[in-house]
Amino acid sequence: MRILGIDPGLRTLGWGVIESNGARLSHVANGLCHSDGDDLGERLLSLHNQITEVIVEYAPDQAAIEQTFVNKDGAGTLKLGQARGVALLTLAKAGLPTGEYAPNRVKKTVVGVGHAEKQQVMHMVKLQLPGCAPKGEDAADALAIAICHAYYGGTNQRQLKEVRA
Amino acid sequence: MRILGIDPGLRTLGWGVIESNGARLSHVANGLCHSDGDDLGERLLSLHNQITEVIVEYAPDQAAIEQTFVNKDGAGTLKLGQARGVALLTLAKAGLPTGEYAPNRVKKTVVGVGHAEKQQVMHMVKLQLPGCAPKGEDAADALAIAICHAYYGGTNQRQLKEVRA
Repeated sequence: MRILGIDPGLRTLGWGVIESNGARLSHVANGLCHSDGDDLGERLLSLHNQITEVIVEYAPDQAAIEQTFVNKDGAGTLKLGQARGVALLTLAKAGLPTGEYAPNRVKKTVVGVGHAEKQQVMHMVKLQLPGCAPKGEDAADALAIAICHAYYGGTNQRQLKEVRA
Repeated sequence: MRILGIDPGLRTLGWGVIESNGARLSHVANGLCHSDGDDLGERLLSLHNQITEVIVEYAPDQAAIEQTFVNKDGAGTLKLGQARGVALLTLAKAGLPTGEYAPNRVKKTVVGVGHAEKQQVMHMVKLQLPGCAPKGEDAADALAIAICHAYYGGTNQRQLKEVRA
């Protein structure tokens, strides 16, 4: 099964594609989608188009996305929410069953502890996906989310629903 | 010029279309898009499809959307942000120049004061758009946003950029 992981963000959105065959994981591709400028609609459209290109090129079977961390910075939460909404829409439009995972669950799965540093995530992603060179921390996070889905999402739709709930 | 106003929301999203000929405004249509269920991606896709249908049916020239109120409820801000991101994407995908307006600016334009009640907005929208029967408060708000854009957005792209800034 091929899994697309997404680490949502408005300025930089990380993505990573892995192949999961039972307990065996392998790296397919990873990268970053960028959006800049004053026009929020155009930025969101650009993210949508870039994610769509990744889906067309790598044809994942399922997807996984990080649950957004709600903090005290309302304006930041709003920006992230808008980018996350567009990412979720793009995955749904492509018909991909999508699991959602809290950041500390992702870290616990990949690193072993829930409050790991970004560098630790990068290190463990490289260890678990031999030959993989993440194109940045957001891309490493996206690969970690895909790894988390490989362990918890499975191919079982019922299980996937539980993960989402 | 035909203007589509959007009052964003995840469960209920209001929309309203008006025609603006100089100082003369007239009502074209209004309504509500609903999304329910556990699957956030499906809900966002449903909103995207419903907004797209409105655009196809009423062929607006420009659009206007409410700036989301960032409050202390982070989870609420996130939900609204996700719906707003999808609305903005849908408008951008349709190539509609879009103005963004703060809620108190919309109220001040339509009612005369920045902190008007929803019923006042409903009342003034009906007065300014003869024959219009809003299908709910969110639809009345969407018409008010479209009216605000008729006054401030104009057909001037430079002006539209200023309004956005």
